[in-house]
Amino acid sequence: MKLEALRREVVEANRELARRGLVIYTFGNASGIARDQGLVAIKPSGVEFDALRPEDIVLTDLDGKVVEGSMRPSSDLPTHLEIYKAFAEAGGVVHTHSTYATAWAQARHPIPCLGTTHADYFYGTIPVTEPLTDEEIESGYELSTGRAIVRLFVDIDPAQMPAVLVSGHGPFTWGGSAAKAAFNAVILEEVARIAQLTIGLDAKAAPLSRAQLDKHFLRKHGPGAYYGQK
Amino acid sequence: MKLEALRREVVEANRELARRGLVIYTFGNASGIARDQGLVAIKPSGVEFDALRPEDIVLTDLDGKVVEGSMRPSSDLPTHLEIYKAFAEAGGVVHTHSTYATAWAQARHPIPCLGTTHADYFYGTIPVTEPLTDEEIESGYELSTGRAIVRLFVDIDPAQMPAVLVSGHGPFTWGGSAAKAAFNAVILEEVARIAQLTIGLDAKAAPLSRAQLDKHFLRKHGPGAYYGQK
Amino acid sequence: MKLEALRREVVEANRELARRGLVIYTFGNASGIARDQGLVAIKPSGVEFDALRPEDIVLTDLDGKVVEGSMRPSSDLPTHLEIYKAFAEAGGVVHTHSTYATAWAQARHPIPCLGTTHADYFYGTIPVTEPLTDEEIESGYELSTGRAIVRLFVDIDPAQMPAVLVSGHGPFTWGGSAAKAAFNAVILEEVARIAQLTIGLDAKAAPLSRAQLDKHFLRKHGPGAYYGQK
Amino acid sequence: MKLEALRREVVEANRELARRGLVIYTFGNASGIARDQGLVAIKPSGVEFDALRPEDIVLTDLDGKVVEGSMRPSSDLPTHLEIYKAFAEAGGVVHTHSTYATAWAQARHPIPCLGTTHADYFYGTIPVTEPLTDEEIESGYELSTGRAIVRLFVDIDPAQMPAVLVSGHGPFTWGGSAAKAAFNAVILEEVARIAQLTIGLDAKAAPLSRAQLDKHFLRKHGPGAYYGQK
Repeated sequence: MKLEALRREVVEANRELARRGLVIYTFGNASGIARDQGLVAIKPSGVEFDALRPEDIVLTDLDGKVVEGSMRPSSDLPTHLEIYKAFAEAGGVVHTHSTYATAWAQARHPIPCLGTTHADYFYGTIPVTEPLTDEEIESGYELSTGRAIVRLFVDIDPAQMPAVLVSGHGPFTWGGSAAKAAFNAVILEEVARIAQLTIGLDAKAAPLSRAQLDKHFLRKHGPGAYYGQK
Repeated sequence: MKLEALRREVVEANRELARRGLVIYTFGNASGIARDQGLVAIKPSGVEFDALRPEDIVLTDLDGKVVEGSMRPSSDLPTHLEIYKAFAEAGGVVHTHSTYATAWAQARHPIPCLGTTHADYFYGTIPVTEPLTDEEIESGYELSTGRAIVRLFVDIDPAQMPAVLVSGHGPFTWGGSAAKAAFNAVILEEVARIAQLTIGLDAKAAPLSRAQLDKHFLRKHGPGAYYGQK
Repeated sequence: MKLEALRREVVEANRELARRGLVIYTFGNASGIARDQGLVAIKPSGVEFDALRPEDIVLTDLDGKVVEGSMRPSSDLPTHLEIYKAFAEAGGVVHTHSTYATAWAQARHPIPCLGTTHADYFYGTIPVTEPLTDEEIESGYELSTGRAIVRLFVDIDPAQMPAVLVSGHGPFTWGGSAAKAAFNAVILEEVARIAQLTIGLDAKAAPLSRAQLDKHFLRKHGPGAYYGQK
Repeated sequence: MKLEALRREVVEANRELARRGLVIYTFGNASGIARDQGLVAIKPSGVEFDALRPEDIVLTDLDGKVVEGSMRPSSDLPTHLEIYKAFAEAGGVVHTHSTYATAWAQARHPIPCLGTTHADYFYGTIPVTEPLTDEEIESGYELSTGRAIVRLFVDIDPAQMPAVLVSGHGPFTWGGSAAKAAFNAVILEEVARIAQLTIGLDAKAAPLSRAQLDKHFLRKHGPGAYYGQK
């Protein structure tokens, strides 16, 4: 029963990516986890978003072994698994090649916090991973990608920074559920777009003050939050 | 009865923002005022635009006390109230994080009047507020934002300049009604976009001449107007 | 009967502008002419495109006197009339504030012919008018705009260059019919957009060779044309 | 029977171009080939995409002689034919004036491989042809275009690089079928867009490492591929 709900939520998160224009054809993927059962539900590899049905979703354990499903899981599965293993708060993970976030990833440039739209969801600069070595690429590329992400967050709280740019590749986001991870992917793309336009107007645009960053992030997140309904 | 109409108009203004692509998810909010009753009708905080119904709209007095409605009002309510209190002509107020206007706000750069599309609706340079001090941010942030806007308009007529960029944040617009405030938000976004593209073609593009600015603004606004139907 | 067809065509041309995203709200207008009767059919001023019906279209003579219709004609009517009077081949005229063409107009920069998309429809550089003097603006602004356009075409064939940028304002296009003028407005916007992106990649991008410009324009236009169906 | 299927596939490939926003009005064209019969099925010249029906598709032999169909074939037919004759793996060919790819073609600049989105489909830098000489333009322009493409691929494997930018003109793509050629045209446009944005963030953005390029292209293509379903 619970796995049924998880499959449906993962389908819905994948569809949200398509609906919001973050993915075309088969680019990108969303997954969700049932922590108590140690099972991950992920989009099958190379399937288009519109055609996706709950029964297509592949279930694997945390070692990537397929437990249920007749299709191959997304080739990015090992990256998702590393994130689930390292970030206890991740209930869902999303990977896209969304246009603006990917441009920042390709420029290998972190996204500075230039305004409150950013500060409302991401608590500071959105980081970019180190490029992988040839050896990391050649032996377990997708696993190495996950490890590069986790390494980068040694001093960053993934609950306060639910997004990362993978150097030369594209963004990963996460959240308490697959739906929340997809939501963060949509916000990230818009934040990346506004940041690019801001830089276009003023290459030296100043980041938000610490006080304003705190104000915006904390009015939405944590014990003092007063945004939204209870 | 009149309040019913106001609620519906406020719902419609909020939906217009979503329809025109100015807001995603729960970003942004529109409100309207019944001046004779001293009541403001505003979007509830953190609710998506498509789901919004007239009965969701929150009614408050000019001190921000909720008079009717079971949900929390938008967290930006104190900013709206400052605008209503200072600008007698404001019948509606809108706040968005629309992409291009927000980029200008993040660059902390006023939008020069580079053409007639701008001059038709905004009588000169669209101003940007001073950044708030840490103290203003920490004590009554949304109120301070409203006060920074009002302070900026000491020598500007808000009837001739129904828009402002809040530094590092995004735009606020107003108008004779919630519908008119939403209309101005849509125009502002398009004006901000064309201005950014113009600057991209020529970083030193000259502003419109005073004579042409007068011509365009005044053929649409005030006693000599001859645009549109009577 | 013929005027009925003209009204319908003018409605359709106006709607095409909205459908293609060239206009929002009441920006822009399309007109058509019945040369034999000396009558111009034009959009009424300040009416939204979706609401437009054939009976709303205003008929005027070439002096701008309303012959039929209960609404005021577009305030840009005098500009349309100057174009009809000077360019015998114009069966329709369109004015928009479409985003990219307007950016070039605001930058007061002609659009160089950088590729075949441009050369297929516009035979060379798309010209920009001289800014109007204060006197021209203050006495008969819309008429002066028309005269500035006509003046610019003293050595340009309007049949080979069915578009102009009005300095600080936006584009006008024309064609054998209102439909053709609207078509040219859509192409112009796309050409302006690709040109801006090209300049963004290489500020000194070279224009197309004369031989290739001739090839593309003339395979679509004139006695040697071989593009399309007979 | 088989030709019927080819016609339908060619219609569908043309419609895909319109659906994805790669073409407006009559710009661009898709074709497919029945290798065993030496017949090419191509869009008729100057027909809009929405109106296209299987019976409109023109069948020609590899010399361009119309074998079936009452309409003229696309004027770009000779370019398609050169590609079919030189690239044995091409089952379909597509030409568009899609915005971003055309901007790169107009800037006469190859698209460097700046990220994995690119590397997933195009194995290295996407090349741009040399400008044609006046003589090549004046005698058999479309044929010369095809020859310039083929000349450029003397040392490039068209199965690994199914796209080219024609200098001052726009992109051509190909693939195992008309559908695959259209798919590659859509991906190319997105890759061109992300590349332009990347350059906008960092004019000296580094290309992907050889190891990562190999990894991404080869996990999707060739004997070692593990992306997608079997």
